Amino acid sequence: MLRLPRTIEWKDGIVRLINQKELPDRLIYIETSDWRRVAKAIKDMEIRGAPAIGVAAGYALALFAYHWRGESLESFKRELFQAAEEVKKTRPTAVNLFWAVERILSKASQVSSIDEARRSIIEEAINIHKEDERANRRIGEIGAELIEDGDTIITVCNAGSLATSYWGTATAPMYVAREQGKNIRVIALETRPYLQGARLTAWELSQAGIDVVIATDNSIGILAMREKISLAIVGADRVTRIGWVANKLGTYPLALVSRVHNIPFYVAAPTSTLDLKSKDPTDFEIEKRDPSEVLYWKGTRIAPEGVNAIYYAFDLTPPQLITGIITEAGIIYPPYEKNIPRTLQRV
Amino acid sequence: MLRLPRTIEWKDGIVRLINQKELPDRLIYIETSDWRRVAKAIKDMEIRGAPAIGVAAGYALALFAYHWRGESLESFKRELFQAAEEVKKTRPTAVNLFWAVERILSKASQVSSIDEARRSIIEEAINIHKEDERANRRIGEIGAELIEDGDTIITVCNAGSLATSYWGTATAPMYVAREQGKNIRVIALETRPYLQGARLTAWELSQAGIDVVIATDNSIGILAMREKISLAIVGADRVTRIGWVANKLGTYPLALVSRVHNIPFYVAAPTSTLDLKSKDPTDFEIEKRDPSEVLYWKGTRIAPEGVNAIYYAFDLTPPQLITGIITEAGIIYPPYEKNIPRTLQRV
Repeated sequence: MLRLPRTIEWKDGIVRLINQKELPDRLIYIETSDWRRVAKAIKDMEIRGAPAIGVAAGYALALFAYHWRGESLESFKRELFQAAEEVKKTRPTAVNLFWAVERILSKASQVSSIDEARRSIIEEAINIHKEDERANRRIGEIGAELIEDGDTIITVCNAGSLATSYWGTATAPMYVAREQGKNIRVIALETRPYLQGARLTAWELSQAGIDVVIATDNSIGILAMREKISLAIVGADRVTRIGWVANKLGTYPLALVSRVHNIPFYVAAPTSTLDLKSKDPTDFEIEKRDPSEVLYWKGTRIAPEGVNAIYYAFDLTPPQLITGIITEAGIIYPPYEKNIPRTLQRV
Repeated sequence: MLRLPRTIEWKDGIVRLINQKELPDRLIYIETSDWRRVAKAIKDMEIRGAPAIGVAAGYALALFAYHWRGESLESFKRELFQAAEEVKKTRPTAVNLFWAVERILSKASQVSSIDEARRSIIEEAINIHKEDERANRRIGEIGAELIEDGDTIITVCNAGSLATSYWGTATAPMYVAREQGKNIRVIALETRPYLQGARLTAWELSQAGIDVVIATDNSIGILAMREKISLAIVGADRVTRIGWVANKLGTYPLALVSRVHNIPFYVAAPTSTLDLKSKDPTDFEIEKRDPSEVLYWKGTRIAPEGVNAIYYAFDLTPPQLITGIITEAGIIYPPYEKNIPRTLQRV
């Protein structure tokens, strides 16, 4: 089986995670027994990607439990809740973070001794990690069936192993296809303003020996005309119950170009990303972020003084442009209105 | 009338041009009486944009003529031809460069004295400059009729005053609309890898007091959904006789998004950009450029070592996505197959 660098690992009271801010220049690990250091890593985006943040939050509380010294279960719980509050404050919009913290706290509420609390919290954190990895592996196995030897696949941003516990979502089918001996080529769109495609996706795929090239985001049109692209696979931050996809900037234009050029366009996401509570984009906010993230590149201003930027963090792809949604429970095809709720009933 | 910084100027044997490599940080002029310095400015892209390069080439030879010291007309002509060869070598693919040099040489072939040669070359260089400015002004006047008070206009790259002698092509209607007192807002797509939109278009529009914001190239989809865009105006490097448009990367995806969101999509170009010799993109090459221009940003590598980039310099927009082509001879509407040749007959 293919081996990728581990985004985050737990071993006997130590958490080790890749400092993603240093990529692709240097592969540097943060190794710590201090739960606060893990919280800081989330806050400072040394680890990013919603599933990866969830796993890190679980391990932060596992570190707390592992190293807590005291004798009263009551004090343990009180301090655990305080630590949980601090962890939740690191990235206020990441759903997975809250979800992971709640899972840990709910375990802690059921115990009758400190030893039991410790065991059960650590176990739950490891479960969160393993479940994510398992879901991604299944997405990979299911998605790999769409990939043929010699295919060229295009992707946006980093819905990769680095954004999750392992395998990634959009990248999982690529890794499994590679394990199956299929030769593939991946075009990673660089994904301004943070260049997660150029920096992270290109890095992790090349580490795994997959042929990857980068291209600027504005080149999708000519790439579709000239580069014989077999399929597009992207991740998702949220999928509504009728199949609207909120994902990194550039997803929607790529879906549009793919449709015009008959390139199958797949979204890869665990079923936890399917959101039955929202129907269409009127049901949730699209985050507008600080323009300075566009206006400056590594501290250098790229636009004239006095000129501002518009920076939406995500875009919205309508259901009609999506060929299928690859989940750990199978590929969901249209009509999404019917098939998304049906898939969730089965999970 | 609105006043813009002059891209290039001739005065009594001196050429003064904006060093565009320093923009938007600093407005620095190169002032020289040496034709070789102007050639170097073209080669080093201190001046860029096809029409601007044509004007600069003309003035390079005008400088040669103005400052030539000697007595034999034959030597004058021989050395002029040598200088012309050097000028042509600066940017081997720029059509306007050859066209301008040929215009100058053809004038020189008709003279019977050095004085006459000098006068006629300088006059022709000034003509090339004035004709370009006049065509752009007409494009502006014609295009401004499409713009209403309160409109938001989106554009790609820099088909601006800086890329021409004055007014620009895509920007000309914006400047004229502004003169007419219309309040407009322009979204300049940053245009990787060189960021001509963020650096140059944002600069020149803000100099003229036009409200301009930048946005990353991958945000076109969400911008079309959320920013009430009234129309798109872009430039062109070549328009075929049936209306295919070769232009900077990102033009085609923007045209596609515009169509889906009912945003009129206009190309602004002088009739000299209409190329009756080519029918569709099979008739000419799309330049692939050095991947290092994508892989490095101000000397810093953005992608992992060993990972390559695909870099097409242009993309291709099919005629069906183009609402109209704004030229100095009027707006050409579909069917282009009929109306492009017809317009050229009138010019």
